[in-house]
Amino acid sequence: MKTSIDCIPCFVRQTLEAARFLSDYPSVHEGVLREILRCLAGLDLDRPPPFVGQMIHRKLRELTGNPDPYRDARNRHNRLALQLLPELKEIVRTSEDPLKTAALLSITGNVIDLGAHGDLTEDEVRSSIARTFSEPSHIDIEHLRREMEKASSILFLADNAGEIVFDRLLIEQMPIERVIVAVRGGPVINDAVMCDAEAAGLQDLVKLVSNGSDAPGTILDDCSLAFQSCYRNADLVIAKGQGNYETLSNDEKNIFFLFKIKCQTVASHTGFKQGTNVLTPASR
Amino acid sequence: MKTSIDCIPCFVRQTLEAARFLSDYPSVHEGVLREILRCLAGLDLDRPPPFVGQMIHRKLRELTGNPDPYRDARNRHNRLALQLLPELKEIVRTSEDPLKTAALLSITGNVIDLGAHGDLTEDEVRSSIARTFSEPSHIDIEHLRREMEKASSILFLADNAGEIVFDRLLIEQMPIERVIVAVRGGPVINDAVMCDAEAAGLQDLVKLVSNGSDAPGTILDDCSLAFQSCYRNADLVIAKGQGNYETLSNDEKNIFFLFKIKCQTVASHTGFKQGTNVLTPASR
Repeated sequence: MKTSIDCIPCFVRQTLEAARFLSDYPSVHEGVLREILRCLAGLDLDRPPPFVGQMIHRKLRELTGNPDPYRDARNRHNRLALQLLPELKEIVRTSEDPLKTAALLSITGNVIDLGAHGDLTEDEVRSSIARTFSEPSHIDIEHLRREMEKASSILFLADNAGEIVFDRLLIEQMPIERVIVAVRGGPVINDAVMCDAEAAGLQDLVKLVSNGSDAPGTILDDCSLAFQSCYRNADLVIAKGQGNYETLSNDEKNIFFLFKIKCQTVASHTGFKQGTNVLTPASR
Repeated sequence: MKTSIDCIPCFVRQTLEAARFLSDYPSVHEGVLREILRCLAGLDLDRPPPFVGQMIHRKLRELTGNPDPYRDARNRHNRLALQLLPELKEIVRTSEDPLKTAALLSITGNVIDLGAHGDLTEDEVRSSIARTFSEPSHIDIEHLRREMEKASSILFLADNAGEIVFDRLLIEQMPIERVIVAVRGGPVINDAVMCDAEAAGLQDLVKLVSNGSDAPGTILDDCSLAFQSCYRNADLVIAKGQGNYETLSNDEKNIFFLFKIKCQTVASHTGFKQGTNVLTPASR
């Protein structure tokens, strides 16, 4: 999807929040804000929103001099999710439809999409899990089940650290010998990179690949040629998180999006209400 | 007060809201937003926030080709407030402390600070009035009473249209032969200009002056020399609304501010909580 001008105030707010999360220096906050305002003034709105996220966080890494400022947060989120993993597995195992339950839990993991929530607790995640099952959902599980049976290669595009442990529950319900999981190629916010997939233990289950890009989504022409080929060759893509939706929603591909709709702009684009948990193919 | 970088996301949001309120053309929305982002990138943060408001609304008037795009809204708000005037007068007349009651009602009038509330109803204003009397307030009325008795010239700086009818209640409680009321020199948002003061019937009570500026506040060096002299010569200034606080809070003058604290940045600057109705001298 293209960037809406409604995304602009949100980018500005996010820039300031991230700058403050990452630095104690007002000069850094002001510097990054001015740079981003300058970039936004001339922004190509045909690019998807994660293009701006990439730009903001490159600038933040440059100005803070820290190549991976969210590393501690990612580690914390992975640990938190791993502590919950045994009880989550039990929820899936004892449920009527383990695939559907795992898909919903995977969306729940998206609550670990911090921004500033460095201090998320186990209890907060637990109540978020409880809420997920009563929230408005559109989970097109039978369609996914059919496509998974047919596909000889399935590419799962991960989203955030911590969340990737929740994704493991879903991946375990899939024909894992045919599954490849892709993570970001470089640190951006708390998006999962290779070491996060490994922290979630995914290397023992499936083949892992990096997409070669540091965008908080999947901007194909910014990804490595190896990843682009992997993407082209997949019979089925499962794209996790709103960033992957924003970057791939217009792509001609057998692709399912799995995410919580977090803002009104994406709600309008999908036709679902804000807050809905969705598992939906690209074209319904 | 200076502009905080926390004001920046708010300016961007306000720009988009105002552009949409004033024009149906997406090209205008995008154009004004890009221009303002460019200006904000290089903004002198030593200037007070209404300096940006002035810039945004000059740009909007230029791009919409409408020299007074809020004129209808202002007229509507004046009519609405005038309809309520008899019952407001009765509230003041029957109250224990008419000066204090009129000061609180004058702050209530600030609810007619639209932005997008072109569709404000009498009932909404009535419930806002009722709320005002139970909301947190800091009304330094005895101090104002003493200063009013001493002052041989009192300058009242008005804020918005509609609201100026509520201000009339307070002005009527003052020694009106010594009072001058100032309005903005040119249209900006729904700020009161001369015809709004006249719609409120103030020309029959007090001397009216224009400040010669189209800023949504009182940026002294942007005001006419005549107004600057009037301001310098006043023994006591009563400045209504947050815009006047933002522009005059650092001025060395015997000045009282009368407004509802509408954002966290101004709350921090004043030391009062956001949402508080205040009547306070410049230095407490």
